[in-house]
Amino acid sequence: MNGTSRARYFEDFAVGQVLEHATPRTLTEGDTAIYMALYGPRSAVQSSSAFARQIGYQAAPLDDLLVFHVVFGRTVPDISANAVANLGYAECRFLRPVFAGDTLCAVSDVIGLRQNSNGRSGIVYVRSRGINQNGEDVLEYVRWVMVEKADEQSPAPDPVVPNLADTVAAEDLGGAVPPLKLFGWDMKLAGSSRMWGDYEPGERIDHVDGVTIEAAEHMMATRLYQNTARVHFDRYRQAQGRHGRRIVYGGHVMSVARALSFNGLENAFHIAAINSGRHVAPCFAGDTVFAWSEVVDKAEIGNRSDIGALRIMTYATRDRPCDTFPGRAGDTYEEGVVLELDYWVAMPR
Amino acid sequence: MNGTSRARYFEDFAVGQVLEHATPRTLTEGDTAIYMALYGPRSAVQSSSAFARQIGYQAAPLDDLLVFHVVFGRTVPDISANAVANLGYAECRFLRPVFAGDTLCAVSDVIGLRQNSNGRSGIVYVRSRGINQNGEDVLEYVRWVMVEKADEQSPAPDPVVPNLADTVAAEDLGGAVPPLKLFGWDMKLAGSSRMWGDYEPGERIDHVDGVTIEAAEHMMATRLYQNTARVHFDRYRQAQGRHGRRIVYGGHVMSVARALSFNGLENAFHIAAINSGRHVAPCFAGDTVFAWSEVVDKAEIGNRSDIGALRIMTYATRDRPCDTFPGRAGDTYEEGVVLELDYWVAMPR
Amino acid sequence: MNGTSRARYFEDFAVGQVLEHATPRTLTEGDTAIYMALYGPRSAVQSSSAFARQIGYQAAPLDDLLVFHVVFGRTVPDISANAVANLGYAECRFLRPVFAGDTLCAVSDVIGLRQNSNGRSGIVYVRSRGINQNGEDVLEYVRWVMVEKADEQSPAPDPVVPNLADTVAAEDLGGAVPPLKLFGWDMKLAGSSRMWGDYEPGERIDHVDGVTIEAAEHMMATRLYQNTARVHFDRYRQAQGRHGRRIVYGGHVMSVARALSFNGLENAFHIAAINSGRHVAPCFAGDTVFAWSEVVDKAEIGNRSDIGALRIMTYATRDRPCDTFPGRAGDTYEEGVVLELDYWVAMPR
Repeated sequence: MNGTSRARYFEDFAVGQVLEHATPRTLTEGDTAIYMALYGPRSAVQSSSAFARQIGYQAAPLDDLLVFHVVFGRTVPDISANAVANLGYAECRFLRPVFAGDTLCAVSDVIGLRQNSNGRSGIVYVRSRGINQNGEDVLEYVRWVMVEKADEQSPAPDPVVPNLADTVAAEDLGGAVPPLKLFGWDMKLAGSSRMWGDYEPGERIDHVDGVTIEAAEHMMATRLYQNTARVHFDRYRQAQGRHGRRIVYGGHVMSVARALSFNGLENAFHIAAINSGRHVAPCFAGDTVFAWSEVVDKAEIGNRSDIGALRIMTYATRDRPCDTFPGRAGDTYEEGVVLELDYWVAMPR
Repeated sequence: MNGTSRARYFEDFAVGQVLEHATPRTLTEGDTAIYMALYGPRSAVQSSSAFARQIGYQAAPLDDLLVFHVVFGRTVPDISANAVANLGYAECRFLRPVFAGDTLCAVSDVIGLRQNSNGRSGIVYVRSRGINQNGEDVLEYVRWVMVEKADEQSPAPDPVVPNLADTVAAEDLGGAVPPLKLFGWDMKLAGSSRMWGDYEPGERIDHVDGVTIEAAEHMMATRLYQNTARVHFDRYRQAQGRHGRRIVYGGHVMSVARALSFNGLENAFHIAAINSGRHVAPCFAGDTVFAWSEVVDKAEIGNRSDIGALRIMTYATRDRPCDTFPGRAGDTYEEGVVLELDYWVAMPR
Repeated sequence: MNGTSRARYFEDFAVGQVLEHATPRTLTEGDTAIYMALYGPRSAVQSSSAFARQIGYQAAPLDDLLVFHVVFGRTVPDISANAVANLGYAECRFLRPVFAGDTLCAVSDVIGLRQNSNGRSGIVYVRSRGINQNGEDVLEYVRWVMVEKADEQSPAPDPVVPNLADTVAAEDLGGAVPPLKLFGWDMKLAGSSRMWGDYEPGERIDHVDGVTIEAAEHMMATRLYQNTARVHFDRYRQAQGRHGRRIVYGGHVMSVARALSFNGLENAFHIAAINSGRHVAPCFAGDTVFAWSEVVDKAEIGNRSDIGALRIMTYATRDRPCDTFPGRAGDTYEEGVVLELDYWVAMPR
């Protein structure tokens, strides 16, 4: 053992490996405030401990995507340090609320491997879990990522491709939401009187506003998550890379789009699950992000009478307003689309 | 009801309307730290809980302008989403201290309306209040703003222009300051031995330092306040607008100038009231802000023996140092002036 | 007394002066979070209160360099407002841990003065101490700085040059580390199984990653520390200065390098002392910082069996990766080197 340890290459992974990631992270009101400064989310539940308590939370829960990014960040040094591309997410569920003061660590199981036909890289599938200081899972998701081989001559592993659900089942949603006291849900403070019953599949919502991404912002965000992927930070070496510049962490764009979606989805206070996510194209500092959403499904959550689920498809674009709802036609994305995110939100009934 | 709700246009306002703004906001030590990182204020009272307690506060109070910006931010979606220009402030009083952990919401009363002669827009006057989790008012101010009409054919309302005081009366100041134990006021820690009695009207103070505004900073600040005014965030559409670029939130410049004013006004630990404020010209990322102040009045506060009030006129400039005290000559502002702020500060006697 | 007070020039200093610096500062979880966003440190001890408690801390201690920068920031208005250059540090020791909620103030003793032969400036030596709300020293260091004279005709003081230790003695280290319960030190969570016994003098470690510095970041950092040195903030006047632009606070580069050094020094959880530090060249926004380290010495700390000390020499560069270990040859630094930092870290045994 000497010097800097080599990050894992494709041939270093094996199905069945359990990776206990480094650096547990206590999340605090400081993280919440920075998240606010970076994205400006406006949901009353996360913004106000008074509102949160009034509806049955013990305190204001942390933003779901903040939790996601922090868990994701822990996995980067072990999984995607030598990644060529982050290919997708599936079966992402938010299982328990996370509050300021909680400490999260992360563990990943390698659940699939498939070498690419070019022999130079392969796809690694992991199921990652975020775990709080009490040993409880707060988040679980599958991600797959293309990782380089260090030695092209190393043998290909037997291919194992996990069977992943297209959509998280509605009955598996809502673990992170305590039973809500809806008489405490002040619609004026929440920003809208439109509840779960007021949305129907097929509705399209232009979130209208656009937000320009700055280099300082996306790097501060990505470091807040202790995500060390080099492509986000190193202008000098990226100048010689494929894009000639630093790439914005895809999760940053997800959070920008989520905050924009308050315009029209005011009461969608919680992301209950992410069915799939695709970073269609990279984003760079200077890009202005816009977003629109379509309600694609609607479901009851078990026998809960307090909240229902809406399945939302959100598209984010760069330098293209979304009044024409630019999305996907078959396999082709329209010009400017950078993100397609398929997820369930919880909304009061 | 469908999609994104339309923000209010001029014809949507009526005198007597009460607007209960969305998104209550719990302020925390995280907000204080970001405010510090954005402006670098140096007053011992807000910077040190030990100092604050020693002089009679229960904890370090939040910076007054942080409170102002957060209350202001809540009002934007209901009042100024379709604003052409923010025209002025008056009768702004800080009524109670705000501490980390407090939750603020905001309510505005429409107190005046006057359609412009061009028939395309009008001026809306609101009195806004910031209210804490106990239902107590912490801040009150009047602001007037020019708002577009959606339909030029809609009838003009009867003009109502409120009668506003030029200056907040000195006896109405100081509600946010508990009785101070001045023996605990360590002048070395506070940064100066100059107290209320040492200033006289007519004194001019060049605050010397200059601070350059970056795009990431003013956007992070404005989002921290959950102020959604589009002109601050959307480089893409602003490129086609009047200024060709994003405009800095005027309140950001107020906070920069306030922090600079520590040089020479070290013991002016509290803004007790804002008599009037005028954003003379817009600021943009890349501008360097300087500031100078004149003491224009001096008053006792009721029969308080602990603190007195100084009325201060602060001018901020861009790309122009203030050693020549650039201000206003009659109705004309000197080159480079971006802000004229007329306010009362409290200082130990 | 009138207007803005003049900052100290060389002739205003005298050996034996005691300077009680203004603006006590309560450090909070907010500061920790911003520090995280600015640098992305990954040591489990500072990142996780659960980890910290498990090994014997009462809570997660604040990052050592955050403490250093905050104490340093307090001294700037009194010592280096009129500084030409910050020349060096010595005998810097971290004496007690600092936790969120602690309030720090700073006091400096002038311990040396020497006018330069050109008669226009001189070197001021100060020993500065950071003191917590209980009156306990948490940090002590010597720094010397070149300060301009206001009046070249003012007489030169008798030269006094303090005798400074090349290296802090190993027996003086470790005051900021409580007795550790090493059975609680989870090596997977800490990021490496390499402990004190696994390093030997002579080992060189390329920290691999590079991080580009943005203007918004270094200014936010420097303001967080309430460091008011003008060269960092004022683009307008710096455009006319020697470098034509704002200079990054040298301490910002130290923190970037320290965070990068986690790659290879994972268990070096604490900076116990800084023997010397030299800002070889200035850094500017847009520069990408890289770093490498050499283990130059190894020592037991008194009769502690829990931790040992490694003396580390870290070099940071700009726009030059460190795989070739660029450093110093005699008195000459290799192209691109911006920082040479000689310090002791503590590591579990």
